[in-house]
Order: sequence, then C-alpha cells, then structure tokens
Amino acid sequence: MTAIRSVAIIGLGLLGGSIGLAIKARAPKITTTGYDRSPDVRAEAAARGLVGAVHETPEAAVKDADLVILCVPVGAMEEAARAIAPGLKAGAIISDVGSSKQAVAEALARALPDHTTIPAHPVAGTEQSGPQAGFATLFAGRWCIITPPEGADPAALEALSAFWSALGSKVELMDAAHHDLVLAVTSHIPHLIAYTIVGTASDLEEVTESEVIKYSAGGFRDFTRIAASDPVMWRDVFLTNRTAVLEMLGRFTEDLTALQRAIRSGDGDTLFDLFTRTRAIRRQVIEQGQDDERPDFGRGHAE
Amino acid sequence: MTAIRSVAIIGLGLLGGSIGLAIKARAPKITTTGYDRSPDVRAEAAARGLVGAVHETPEAAVKDADLVILCVPVGAMEEAARAIAPGLKAGAIISDVGSSKQAVAEALARALPDHTTIPAHPVAGTEQSGPQAGFATLFAGRWCIITPPEGADPAALEALSAFWSALGSKVELMDAAHHDLVLAVTSHIPHLIAYTIVGTASDLEEVTESEVIKYSAGGFRDFTRIAASDPVMWRDVFLTNRTAVLEMLGRFTEDLTALQRAIRSGDGDTLFDLFTRTRAIRRQVIEQGQDDERPDFGRGHAE
Repeated sequence: MTAIRSVAIIGLGLLGGSIGLAIKARAPKITTTGYDRSPDVRAEAAARGLVGAVHETPEAAVKDADLVILCVPVGAMEEAARAIAPGLKAGAIISDVGSSKQAVAEALARALPDHTTIPAHPVAGTEQSGPQAGFATLFAGRWCIITPPEGADPAALEALSAFWSALGSKVELMDAAHHDLVLAVTSHIPHLIAYTIVGTASDLEEVTESEVIKYSAGGFRDFTRIAASDPVMWRDVFLTNRTAVLEMLGRFTEDLTALQRAIRSGDGDTLFDLFTRTRAIRRQVIEQGQDDERPDFGRGHAE
Repeated sequence: MTAIRSVAIIGLGLLGGSIGLAIKARAPKITTTGYDRSPDVRAEAAARGLVGAVHETPEAAVKDADLVILCVPVGAMEEAARAIAPGLKAGAIISDVGSSKQAVAEALARALPDHTTIPAHPVAGTEQSGPQAGFATLFAGRWCIITPPEGADPAALEALSAFWSALGSKVELMDAAHHDLVLAVTSHIPHLIAYTIVGTASDLEEVTESEVIKYSAGGFRDFTRIAASDPVMWRDVFLTNRTAVLEMLGRFTEDLTALQRAIRSGDGDTLFDLFTRTRAIRRQVIEQGQDDERPDFGRGHAE
C-alpha cells in the first residue's frame, strides 16, 4: 500500500483546517502543508497551526505531497486542480471534500488527466466557516464516502481509505451518481428548505422579523443554524448537483402537497400516522451514533 | 392583584411536569396539585414529585387552585375544561399551554362560560414527551405569549403574567389571531416540513432507509429531532390552526418554487443572495439569547 507521509491541503477553511488539526492530533507522523488563495486565511491558518507549513502558492504547497486534498467550494475545484498541476509529484493522489461528487470527478479528470484522482466526501461539518472554525474531532464517528472512478488504482484507494480511518472516520465506497442522490436527500434538500423557510419568514408583512426571532424557539431556530452555512459552498452544491436535487425536491413537494390536503380536509389520521412513523427514524439516528441523544441536542437551558 | 397560592396542572407530560418542577425550584411557596387521565402517568408524576399532590380525578385536583393550567393536546382542551368545571372554586383563573390560541380560546369559553379563562403559550419544549421528560429550567429565558380575550379581568391577567415571570419566562401579550399567524411561521411550518422530509426520505426506493440514517449528519438529523415530537400534540396543532398554517405554507411553497427555478436555470446569484441574507437572521437569534451560540448547537464530537 502507498504510504501517505505528507498531505497538502488546498483551502484552509472549516474542512481544510479540521483535516490539518485532525492529522496533528491523530496521525502526527504525517507532515502537512497548506495553501489558501486568501492572504488573511493563510495568516490565520499559520497562527492557529492548522498545517505544518503554509505556502504562498499552490504549486509550492503540493510539491512533496503524497496526498493533496482540495477543500474549496465545488465550483472552484477545476481551477484549484489546474493550479496545483505544475507542482504535483509523480504518484501523488488527488482528492477533495466536496458535497457533490459527479461534477467533481469530471472536473478533476479534466484538469488532471495524468494523475490519480479519487474524490471523497466526509459527511461532517458545522454552520461555521473559515480558518477559525476547524477542530480536530470534526470527523470522529462520521462517515467519509469515497467515490473511486472506474479503474482507480487499488493501492491509492486503500491509502486514502486508511487515511480517513486514521482521522476517526468510518469509510464507505460508493458510486458517484448514487452518492449524489443520497446526499440530495440527507443534506442538500434539508439545506434548501431551511434556507427557504428562513427567507420566507423574514419577508412576511404580517409578521415582523423581530417576532420571528423572538419566538424562534418553537422550532424555527434549528433551521436558522443550517441556513447560516457558507453561501458560496451551498450555491455551488445546488448548481453542481442539480439533477438529483430537482428530483428529490419533486418528491418532497408531492409529499408536502399531500399533507396540505390532509390539513385542509381535517384528515387527522394521515397526519398522526406520518408523525408516528418519523419518530422511529429519530431513534435509529441516535442508536447509530449519528446524533446527540439528549433532548433538544443537549442545548443548555440557562437559569 | 390576585395572589396565586395554589396551581393545579391538568396533564402531566413534558409541559405540565416542567411547570410543576419550575414552581418547586423558583416559587416554592406555591402549592401544586395535578391530574392526568393516564394512571401510569399519574404514578410516574407522583414518583418524580412533579407536583405536591397527584389526584385521581380532575375535580379533586382543581378544588383549591387559584390557577388551573390545562397541559393537554389542543384538541382535548374542551373536554379537559368540562371535566374540571364541577371542581373549580370561585375566582379561579383557567389557562393553558397550547400551541394554537384562537381554537383554545373558543373551546375554553364554550366549556367554562362563567369563569375567567386566559389562554397562554410558553414557546418552549423539546422533542420528548411524557412525565419523565419535564425539567425545571424549560421556560428560563423563553417567551410566554398570553392571549387575553377581550374584556379579560386585568387583575387575573396581571397574576398570570407574574406567574410566568416567576418561572423565568419573558411575557408578551398578543391577540390570539396574530399569535396563530406568528407561530405558524416560527413553529408549525418548521415542524410540518421536518415531518415531511423525514417521511419522504424514508419512503424512497433509490435510497435506503439505512443510507438516510448513516449519512444524516449532512443536515437531515436536525430534522429528525423535530420530527420526533409528540404526534397527537402536533396533529391537533395542524387541525386547529389550519387557516394560518395553510396561508404560511402557501408562502413557503412560492419561495421554494422560485429557488427550484433558480437551480434549474443555473441562477447562482439568486441562491447566493438568499443564502447570505439568511445568515444574518441566525446572528440575531443568537444575539437575542434564543439559541446556543456554539457551532452545531454545541453537540459533542466524540473521539
């Protein structure tokens, strides 16, 4: 198996920074380098020690890397891949952390036709972004989905899987198209409807924004967290996973219309049946360690 | 001002139990009694000491109460009000904690035409329910909206406001119709779309339920929490606040359709503009103390 001794991280925001910190905490023998196109982010990354060395150009950052991880918005992947191309050493593995995978696979293959590119997606994050947002345990217990292109080098794939396992992730291999459908449901549509309802609520004439905020503890505040996620990252996700998002949005809208009809006609049984069924899903999410079991996510109730 | 020396709680689930525990912690001079129609709940309430005395009938529970709080699903309010009627002492204030207020105001007025009925809604809760779910700090820092009917006795209203303030709530007076519109946005529609997406996700053929659960950390898991809320309570909310819910659902659907069009046509600017705007709402929710400021609600990231 290809041993990964040096990792270059391109893009030092929440994901890139967390990878750097996780390596330092859990795989300290691996050398890390990094680059971000923003000088401010580079300075902050150096100050926080997100990677061992912050470089001034992408080529310099990747020069000795066995593994390069692109941690930029999915719409910027191709440009980032082209920027590192001149610096890559022979045999380097190029991967990423993007939330849509077919578009990224195509972008990397176009930009780096002579290199080993294996897209990946750690299903982890918070609503925060930037070089101050990262932390070492972001990936612990979370799934990392790797979507190897057809004919991907088995040794490189094994090395990438071992790398994510070392950071505390559980690793799953998946076809890129299936990934995009699954994540449309478990991540992209939830974000889209959260962004929508927060926008709807703040645009109403009959209810003021101040009222919306005051009484947000009734459920709305949860949606504001998701709707505080990075705008560039999410714009790119919707534009690059368009087909699956529109397909899943169609299913959601059908189901919502059925509930609307049940409410209009006073059909309490339909509502009760659904509300009982969804409760069981929550129990499974908790049983499988994918959420905090404490009521209300364990949020403090200050005196 | 009418002094409240004794409070009867009818329905000893999350809300009723939390009121009992909050009184014990913050206003220990007030005597508490309680009743629940389920013998199991009564036994658990007595074991946990949710109220000073658990009674076997609603009449007996309210006999000496200055304030009776109905903590039952909104669809059961009228029946509960009729059940306590024979036991009420002269001058008792009857209130509730229901999430829709016009329907409750009408139900209480019908059932207790000769008593002082002042509906109220503490905007607080968790996804859990039952007599084991309550805790003393549930209302601390949260808003309690009181919707006094026209001509409500000012002394009784003042006493009820002082009572909720004593439990740590911030109190606001509001017209019942306006309450129902505000809460449709900040609570009822968020619950409806959370229930819907969790149902949609578990019904797909292309994506298995197991995949939905495994990759729920991408955003979906947050919706499963809300969609684990009490089915009877929420069925009744949608059936009793039908007009406002359908009105707000219409607005949400319009906005979602506009985003769908933006995604389909590749209009990244529309997406970016909305996603930037919604971020500001989150900041205000946190500034006003209505949510945990820590990333990801402070959920633990276990090693």
